[in-house]
Amino acid sequence: MLGLMQDWPLLCHKILDHAAIQHGGREIVSRSVEGPIVRVTYAEARKRALKVAQLLERGGYREGDRIATLAWNTANHLEAWYGINGIGAIYHTLNPRLFPEQIAWIMNHAEDRALFVDLTFLPLAEKIVPQVASVRQVIVFTDAAHMPQTSLSNAIAYEEWLKDGDGDFTWKALDENAACGMCYTSGTTGDPKGVLYSHRSNVLHAMIASTPNAMGISARDVVMPVVPMFHANAWGLAQSGPMVGAKLVMPGGRMDGEAIWELLDTEKVTFTAAVPTVWLMLLQHLEQTGKTLPHLKRVVIGGSACPRAMTQKFQDIYDVEVVHAWGMTEMSPLGSLCTMKPEYAGLTGDGRLDIEQKQGFAPFGVEMKVTDDDNVDLPWDGKTFGRLKVRGPSVARAYYGGAGADQFDEEGWFDTGDVAHIDRHGYMQITDRAKDVIKSGGEWISTIDLENLAVGHPDVAEAAVIGVAHPKWDERPLLVIVKKPGKEPTKDDLLGFLAGKVAKWWMPDDVVFVDEIPHTATGKIQKTTLRDRFRDYRLPTQ
Amino acid sequence: MLGLMQDWPLLCHKILDHAAIQHGGREIVSRSVEGPIVRVTYAEARKRALKVAQLLERGGYREGDRIATLAWNTANHLEAWYGINGIGAIYHTLNPRLFPEQIAWIMNHAEDRALFVDLTFLPLAEKIVPQVASVRQVIVFTDAAHMPQTSLSNAIAYEEWLKDGDGDFTWKALDENAACGMCYTSGTTGDPKGVLYSHRSNVLHAMIASTPNAMGISARDVVMPVVPMFHANAWGLAQSGPMVGAKLVMPGGRMDGEAIWELLDTEKVTFTAAVPTVWLMLLQHLEQTGKTLPHLKRVVIGGSACPRAMTQKFQDIYDVEVVHAWGMTEMSPLGSLCTMKPEYAGLTGDGRLDIEQKQGFAPFGVEMKVTDDDNVDLPWDGKTFGRLKVRGPSVARAYYGGAGADQFDEEGWFDTGDVAHIDRHGYMQITDRAKDVIKSGGEWISTIDLENLAVGHPDVAEAAVIGVAHPKWDERPLLVIVKKPGKEPTKDDLLGFLAGKVAKWWMPDDVVFVDEIPHTATGKIQKTTLRDRFRDYRLPTQ
Repeated sequence: MLGLMQDWPLLCHKILDHAAIQHGGREIVSRSVEGPIVRVTYAEARKRALKVAQLLERGGYREGDRIATLAWNTANHLEAWYGINGIGAIYHTLNPRLFPEQIAWIMNHAEDRALFVDLTFLPLAEKIVPQVASVRQVIVFTDAAHMPQTSLSNAIAYEEWLKDGDGDFTWKALDENAACGMCYTSGTTGDPKGVLYSHRSNVLHAMIASTPNAMGISARDVVMPVVPMFHANAWGLAQSGPMVGAKLVMPGGRMDGEAIWELLDTEKVTFTAAVPTVWLMLLQHLEQTGKTLPHLKRVVIGGSACPRAMTQKFQDIYDVEVVHAWGMTEMSPLGSLCTMKPEYAGLTGDGRLDIEQKQGFAPFGVEMKVTDDDNVDLPWDGKTFGRLKVRGPSVARAYYGGAGADQFDEEGWFDTGDVAHIDRHGYMQITDRAKDVIKSGGEWISTIDLENLAVGHPDVAEAAVIGVAHPKWDERPLLVIVKKPGKEPTKDDLLGFLAGKVAKWWMPDDVVFVDEIPHTATGKIQKTTLRDRFRDYRLPTQ
Repeated sequence: MLGLMQDWPLLCHKILDHAAIQHGGREIVSRSVEGPIVRVTYAEARKRALKVAQLLERGGYREGDRIATLAWNTANHLEAWYGINGIGAIYHTLNPRLFPEQIAWIMNHAEDRALFVDLTFLPLAEKIVPQVASVRQVIVFTDAAHMPQTSLSNAIAYEEWLKDGDGDFTWKALDENAACGMCYTSGTTGDPKGVLYSHRSNVLHAMIASTPNAMGISARDVVMPVVPMFHANAWGLAQSGPMVGAKLVMPGGRMDGEAIWELLDTEKVTFTAAVPTVWLMLLQHLEQTGKTLPHLKRVVIGGSACPRAMTQKFQDIYDVEVVHAWGMTEMSPLGSLCTMKPEYAGLTGDGRLDIEQKQGFAPFGVEMKVTDDDNVDLPWDGKTFGRLKVRGPSVARAYYGGAGADQFDEEGWFDTGDVAHIDRHGYMQITDRAKDVIKSGGEWISTIDLENLAVGHPDVAEAAVIGVAHPKWDERPLLVIVKKPGKEPTKDDLLGFLAGKVAKWWMPDDVVFVDEIPHTATGKIQKTTLRDRFRDYRLPTQ
């Protein structure tokens, strides 16, 4: 027997409708790419999104078409998303930090039919678009006055384009499982893989994100998504912000400490989110200038592990609550957030910081487990680590085109590729990537734990740990060290430093010194390159 | 093109799974019907719910079966719901305040196959069950030691029954649109009408309810639903509480001021919800004893309009935030909550109380409009009132069996039967019931506004306003007054008191004095009876 409740599909553009109706006068404030701060209300943004939808439809775009965006966080970018969704098309965010040939590969794979692009990235687009035959039109987020000469024949200024629309358009009626957004993940190996969000997954994700166990935002918040919209929906804030009617502050292309602080201060931002690198720049700016953060209440930090000292500074010096978080593009992206359960809520000082080093717990709508290589569940004891697997309505079930099928099992669990442990209260901590963890005699050794310890040595600039083949143990850890200038630590110094801090069988079998450790485009250690380099390394026999 | 996100149906029993996994040690504290305070954790409650499911299935109950409950708010009642849902059956809450013949009528209409009942209501069940042929089994929430003699042949004590289960059961895989709960509304006229909740509508409602624009509850809250589970899912707290992992405090059968205060205090309740009558008893208890509310942060007040003085006392004397709310059984039930948008957040004193008299704004997932009788939208100006209509994923699209079809239109809007205005910031205020509003020369007059003014006269004990036929204006207001003992106000006194406080054309045409005003079982003025009594009343001609 079915219930007798309304069939009210969960559609992204209903979020903007709600914002316009219930929070119509509230602002989206953007640092424009042209420079000035610009303001638009939710009611105005909805009208502009309706024009986008109307003009896309008139231009021949249809349900299911992929429309690429290569842009910073601005109101223009946001309203374009909702307009694209409003005809049933799919916004496809491109990461401008990738190499042009990677972006072209991705656009060809997705068969993008149009591109919305910021002025900043027009030179990049000029390199890419000629390689992507499916693109029929390039719409540049600017007005006629700022529109530069361009080699792209089908380019038009956004504001000029919008002039042809009157917004007299009705959003398309869609299946809530229709695709609405696309974002490719670029691993360190293999081709990028496309995640295809649905209206349903985005709306549910935004609801979950808004609850106080997660981000806990409301109409009273002023929310600044510093994390880019091209990083998995700005961690969902592109949907959850309008859903709760929060004033949005969009930082555009400037993410330096001064620019971020200026917006935090003048717009009285209460809630923000970004990767540690951004906050490092902000904290440095604060230290240099003596500025403070009187309005900011909470900052969500994710993307990579938040350093303990960063959490401490935000909380102790600036009275800003840090919420450590973890997620993946494949998860829309939120997986866990380190808000406090009552078991930990009373902690202060180091006790609290110990917990805040964890990436937190999964809210309702995210199932999580850790297993060994044979898919056997591991205990939640805060130390036994294994493959982290997730399941939920905002988690991918496949990649676009069918790549990476081995990451999804028949029970619906997605293998995140991360290695983690979970404590008895459900707090998860990432300890490694599955491809980096060292398997020694059937037991796992976390390279990240060893690296974090080794960089604590005063003479070490950077440390990496990789597994090297071993005749008896399969793999054993090799510690790779970049010395600080003018310092000459020895192998014995380093092993002596680690001794007693880790289990004996975790101790690296050897230490090598190098001039430089290779990094990926996003600043992570490129362990594949390191492993290649030391593939034939012979560990000393004892 | 469909998205590639997981098919993870929104099912009620997943809420309890989540609570058991992520908040397994947190407690549900109940004042048992037998007397003592009893405690069970979410992990234990889930195990007991699994036993309920296992035993129901073994007992021959199947997906779609209606299983009635006649019980207070306790952990037993809650785990029974989840167990019922776990086999795809439908919990059907009965309101013990109805007359026995009404309850029997409802049970027969629903064709309930079993009944879970509290000791308190066993005598009531003994009257009803023999009239309901579909009921095969009566399970009494108690243990063998407390099980009384009963005339019901198929009765068994819950704890005895549970002993036959081991909880080795897997929740049924269900369509998220499957029915999961049932609740009849009893209007003042006509037969009761059944609302049939789905798993999806309940889960979405709980998500929406948890967000800070609505109830804003988290794992750090201690939540006491005083509002009964037989009143539309305890306003959703039966789902949202476990969903966020809040400690739950269930007041059982005692809702007097002393009992409520005791639980608020000893269990350190931070969040609670009930109708004004309950809070009147609590406030009286506090005044008599000098007790305070040091732990309580927020109280949601709905069911009927929250008196201004009540809001003021909670906020000014006890430092508890009042969230005025409105909803209906047909809405799962939340429709709007008076949390503060930034436009109003800075208000204090009378300015804030003015806003808090409104029932608040609709969160995402509830669409709301006011229309005239011809379904034309009325402006959101805070004064033009009309029929309040709603739409959303947790709003009914029909009643069980098809009754009341005229309340649903082809665009999906449900006519609430309430009359309201909405202000420019989206804050709605109920001004009347549609069937009570007086239509004078095509314009509407709110009887509630007139009543609220009239009871402000020092000599008036109670006031009611009804429409009486008028040859020229169709209807004109008649003011019906119960005098305070020993007081003798005159018609001129009362009309003089109203003069200047309402528009001239709102002024009652006449005043009559009566010994008593009739009330419904739930304490509302029975206007149908009053209208019958004064059907032939001749208004004075001027």
